Amino acid sequence: MKYTILFGFLSAVIFTSTAFSQIQTDVVEYKHDKAVLEGYISYDKAIKGPRPGVLVVHEWYGVNDYVKKRAEQLAQLGYVAFVVDMYGKGIRPTTPQECGIQAGKYRNDRPLMRARVKAALDELKKNKMVDPERIAAIGYCFGGAVVLELARSGAEIAGVVSFHGGLDTPTPDDAKNIKGKVLVCHGGDDPHITMAAVSAFHDEMSNAKVDYQVIIYGGAVHSFTNPDAGNDPSKGAAYSPSADKRSWEGMKQFFGEIFK
Amino acid sequence: MKYTILFGFLSAVIFTSTAFSQIQTDVVEYKHDKAVLEGYISYDKAIKGPRPGVLVVHEWYGVNDYVKKRAEQLAQLGYVAFVVDMYGKGIRPTTPQECGIQAGKYRNDRPLMRARVKAALDELKKNKMVDPERIAAIGYCFGGAVVLELARSGAEIAGVVSFHGGLDTPTPDDAKNIKGKVLVCHGGDDPHITMAAVSAFHDEMSNAKVDYQVIIYGGAVHSFTNPDAGNDPSKGAAYSPSADKRSWEGMKQFFGEIFK
Repeated sequence: MKYTILFGFLSAVIFTSTAFSQIQTDVVEYKHDKAVLEGYISYDKAIKGPRPGVLVVHEWYGVNDYVKKRAEQLAQLGYVAFVVDMYGKGIRPTTPQECGIQAGKYRNDRPLMRARVKAALDELKKNKMVDPERIAAIGYCFGGAVVLELARSGAEIAGVVSFHGGLDTPTPDDAKNIKGKVLVCHGGDDPHITMAAVSAFHDEMSNAKVDYQVIIYGGAVHSFTNPDAGNDPSKGAAYSPSADKRSWEGMKQFFGEIFK
Repeated sequence: MKYTILFGFLSAVIFTSTAFSQIQTDVVEYKHDKAVLEGYISYDKAIKGPRPGVLVVHEWYGVNDYVKKRAEQLAQLGYVAFVVDMYGKGIRPTTPQECGIQAGKYRNDRPLMRARVKAALDELKKNKMVDPERIAAIGYCFGGAVVLELARSGAEIAGVVSFHGGLDTPTPDDAKNIKGKVLVCHGGDDPHITMAAVSAFHDEMSNAKVDYQVIIYGGAVHSFTNPDAGNDPSKGAAYSPSADKRSWEGMKQFFGEIFK
């Protein structure tokens, strides 16, 4: 009985707290060298003062509603979320072939990949809502590989989270530059990122004494966080409600630790 | 300001809730065939009615203060925790050699290992404080291997958690019997349980379509949850405060899911 009252009490308080939030999402145009980029910034207007910032890097589709929704979810958690545009304003590929071409440009040119995401980091650090000492980056698929490269570049960042992202790099020795913590959320049955890749990533991180974690979700395949990926794991990419929920909770726990 | 008040409010409520708890730990003598076993049961006397139960299986040292402390921590979370005695009343090895002999008996006789831990499960299920539909088992090192064998035996159990436990089994096909969910908390640099073992475990679980998760904690070695293991990872076994905290949080999240 005592507990029922307590839980009712807590629920009421949490409900009230949620009711305060006023999520706003604005388009942001910014630049990297001569490239014009267009992302979003999402934040809770009800929060005053500097708070942690989170870069969100898209899948190989580029900036879309999915990644924008993730930014809004992060804003609901109290962070300033910045949707990175890796490809450039208006470059929004629609077919797998076009996606492959765009993503390939950066996969095959890691210095460009690093510099492009660094431009977004610099943009976010300038934002007055953001505490520049408490910034993280998360990424999905292609974006997962991007945030790991950002870490390997030695960027001043508290942590990165990859969701079903590529783990390989042409310069594994750069892991020694990593300044923050690393969390990899991996689908155990992802046909594109095998257990051999997980093992190689472990070697890379372990050799460089990085503070990293890898969580393997059994049965999950590529794209497990994205409802648009469908529900047939035999295709190699599919949404997994349980792995989506677990990995989001894992990220929240990770942020709780790095944003202390 | 609004948030400060809210957080103050929440802290006060949580503090009050903690103040209610009255943890009690009793010695339990029980049997498996002719073997007399002596464990502990730990619970919060302030909680009324059936609640989830958790078996806790010891390291190769057998029942000791460490595992008893874990049971008390589980009781503080609101569970009924049962410290399993795998070796038998009074069998408390002290040297690594004696520990190896005791643990080896069960490692080399998996049917005995399974039956011995099943006796504890039956004992816990009979307890009136426990909801028999919501039982999990956790284990440390040797105990991690034990709870995985319990799962492979087809025991009716909601989930198992292994902390730095052995992952191999002579009968990987038995994974198809697993009824609950599985969480493995693994030290990335554990010299006794290599990435090859993690990979083999993944294959075993994946083939049987088990709902499993493996969390790899970078830099952690064997015994990472136990402060008595010292702080020199170069010895292959050492306490890691961060991996200890992370894995305990991971367990709590897992329990939140399976004990819904």
